[in-house]
Amino acid sequence: MHPLDPFFSPRSVAVVGASRNPSKVGHVIYRNFLEGGFRGQVYPVNPNAPDLFGHPCFPSLAAIPGPVDLAVITVPAELVPAALEDCGRKKVPAVILISAGFAEIGKKQEEEQLKAIGKKYRLRILGPNCLGVFDPATGVDTLFLPRFKLGRPEKGSIAYISQSGATGSVVLDWMAMKGYKVSKFVSYGNAMDIDEADLLTYLAQDRDTKVICAYFEGVREGRRFYEVARSLAGKKPVIVLKGGQTPAGTTAALSHTGSLAGEARIFDAALRQAGVIKAADLEQIFDFARTFASSPPARGDRVQVITNGGGFGVLTADAIYQAGLRMASLADQTKEELTKALPSHVIIKNPIDLTGDADTHRYALALDAVLRDPGVDLLAVVTLFQVPTLTPDVVEVLVEAKGQKPMVVIAAGGKYTEVLKKPLEDVGIPTFSYPERAVAALKALVEYSGSRAARA
Amino acid sequence: MHPLDPFFSPRSVAVVGASRNPSKVGHVIYRNFLEGGFRGQVYPVNPNAPDLFGHPCFPSLAAIPGPVDLAVITVPAELVPAALEDCGRKKVPAVILISAGFAEIGKKQEEEQLKAIGKKYRLRILGPNCLGVFDPATGVDTLFLPRFKLGRPEKGSIAYISQSGATGSVVLDWMAMKGYKVSKFVSYGNAMDIDEADLLTYLAQDRDTKVICAYFEGVREGRRFYEVARSLAGKKPVIVLKGGQTPAGTTAALSHTGSLAGEARIFDAALRQAGVIKAADLEQIFDFARTFASSPPARGDRVQVITNGGGFGVLTADAIYQAGLRMASLADQTKEELTKALPSHVIIKNPIDLTGDADTHRYALALDAVLRDPGVDLLAVVTLFQVPTLTPDVVEVLVEAKGQKPMVVIAAGGKYTEVLKKPLEDVGIPTFSYPERAVAALKALVEYSGSRAARA
Repeated sequence: MHPLDPFFSPRSVAVVGASRNPSKVGHVIYRNFLEGGFRGQVYPVNPNAPDLFGHPCFPSLAAIPGPVDLAVITVPAELVPAALEDCGRKKVPAVILISAGFAEIGKKQEEEQLKAIGKKYRLRILGPNCLGVFDPATGVDTLFLPRFKLGRPEKGSIAYISQSGATGSVVLDWMAMKGYKVSKFVSYGNAMDIDEADLLTYLAQDRDTKVICAYFEGVREGRRFYEVARSLAGKKPVIVLKGGQTPAGTTAALSHTGSLAGEARIFDAALRQAGVIKAADLEQIFDFARTFASSPPARGDRVQVITNGGGFGVLTADAIYQAGLRMASLADQTKEELTKALPSHVIIKNPIDLTGDADTHRYALALDAVLRDPGVDLLAVVTLFQVPTLTPDVVEVLVEAKGQKPMVVIAAGGKYTEVLKKPLEDVGIPTFSYPERAVAALKALVEYSGSRAARA
Repeated sequence: MHPLDPFFSPRSVAVVGASRNPSKVGHVIYRNFLEGGFRGQVYPVNPNAPDLFGHPCFPSLAAIPGPVDLAVITVPAELVPAALEDCGRKKVPAVILISAGFAEIGKKQEEEQLKAIGKKYRLRILGPNCLGVFDPATGVDTLFLPRFKLGRPEKGSIAYISQSGATGSVVLDWMAMKGYKVSKFVSYGNAMDIDEADLLTYLAQDRDTKVICAYFEGVREGRRFYEVARSLAGKKPVIVLKGGQTPAGTTAALSHTGSLAGEARIFDAALRQAGVIKAADLEQIFDFARTFASSPPARGDRVQVITNGGGFGVLTADAIYQAGLRMASLADQTKEELTKALPSHVIIKNPIDLTGDADTHRYALALDAVLRDPGVDLLAVVTLFQVPTLTPDVVEVLVEAKGQKPMVVIAAGGKYTEVLKKPLEDVGIPTFSYPERAVAALKALVEYSGSRAARA
């Protein structure tokens, strides 16, 4: 068992500061465990409440009869040292310190005190000043934002760690709406004990996680993070967005998390050398992650575009060129085959423009031929679902084509389109509304596949 | 009356090729007029049907008793010349030629024939090979995509013209889902008669239109387009995305619309000189349009960030720096005022970080002070709605702050967040999920305001 396992799959959890008052953090977290599908034991701890939602409440950690694998501490800052001492005496292996009011507001001495207590009892501590953990597989959910305000994504293979709590959680909410899926989410706040490198190491060996994503403004131990990331290169993709990349951002980061990563360029270079993939914005983290989680490696950089909308074909070609990828050239045999099989007004070039009256059959023919063409490394498929001749069974054809070569699907539109994109996302075909983001994801995949091959 | 008025507000419309068969273009368009809120007369024309949906069907245009302001032609290419002749004899001032199969597939002579007929009768013709017009104010809707597949946006002040039909219509669908609003939509296809310059001229004088957006791969008369755009500069913003900006895209555009705009850089330079705002992708057209439609001019480039999420503050600051805008410096008076009024853990710098326990009152105080500070030209306000202390009435505070200085709101999240963003969009406060797009819109506004001021 890994020492961080109790954070994600504890058999028993104590919520210290569980409360009847719905505006209290301890209230929301306790309810998350009761209502969020957690199957282990949950103990509310509050000396002032005899029971909570019909469950007996414990006056202290010590009063809990059985062992506690994970303690979630939500009490005010001044009560945290005592609560940590209690955890130590109870031999709790894992503590999530939700409570804020330490180094992040300049109270460094107070945080040092916590650190000393942790050390004394060999506690592993996440936080303070964090949202903690969300693990859809086990139902661990210490996010103190109620589900009606903040959606939770389904179980998937993308892990996401965030130094910033709010930034992490609202992205989680956005992921839930988009139908993107996570393996584990961790907001680790001040990283007093467990830091980015620890989490990276843990997620590296986590079977549920295929891609690791991170947002941070600084790393506590740059060298160690670099070493861990480098050891991962070629095994699991690590995608990072660093806040504070400019003087303006660095100043803001200094106020926010007290992070100062030094010269952004040096850090950038180190990450690149370690094989880390850099995202340009929060949305792009998941554009990349979705693509990496399910795509076979790219064997080269030659992209074939298939479209039923000429304009989207043009914009996709522009994006491919601008990204520094190459437009594939179809083999003569592929061209002949498609010329025979498709109506004469279909344009068999790159893009293959199946034109506005394309049906599912045309997509099936084009996909099949292009997947067999050795001159094509990657596919960018535009499916404007709204055109009258295109029926929803084109989704099945796309699902069928999955996994042979990296493929992204571009489909812009409203509700009807979003409904048809959902099953594609569900089987791991990354979908995009517009060409530019789709092509950026292919570009990242090509770079990663290339550096991976170079290492092999 | 403007000669193009009958395309948007006809008193009577004939749908030539109206049909009972739901898979026919003429069927969908006729039903659009019946069911889409059009208040004028609609005449179905089809020699093979005595009636349609209980309405008498006319064997020919000539058989229609009253005048026809607009004819929508949906018959196969080979029947189009005769249909146009009919329009000429009936003295129809405006014709939308939905039918395809002309210059776009190399049949240039056939298109010349149509042009000659148009000239003979002095017809104004939109198309061929287009989707035509959608005007939410009058109910004119010639998009042959049924509403269950393709949503229609509500009435607003953004006009959007698109050379490419599919590209235009799926964006319309996406706008409907997002809650963005349009004044007029035109897909003009081959631009045999009415072209970009004509439409620009028309929209320039259209009272419902505040911002003009265009997607095209080439313009028919570059010089005239440039002149019209230049004459508009400083009056109405014109935002353009040009497909085919790279060799790969140009090759694709050549197959698609037969457009070849020549050297992209020259075209770019001309557009810039004419005061046209260039968008980088389809989504950005509307990021810019929404911001331009409702913002007062920017008096400078100094942006103040207000946030309740530190990470989002950092990323917004990064984006501002990267965009080449400046971070505002608050006046001493503003700082003193806010220091007195706000709790001590609030960070009164740039960003102003109201922190994770911010409530509506803190936003009200910060907005009020920043709006009065002469050192602040623009506002980027992050509202992470999910945090427990922030109540939905912050929306009212934002609405109250509207119109004094350009302001964008950044709020990432799921359904709860989208619901709260809707009223902001409705009153004309542009909302974004992530900082980068919001800041790009502010940057475009600053550039436009600057060039406008320079012209004045």
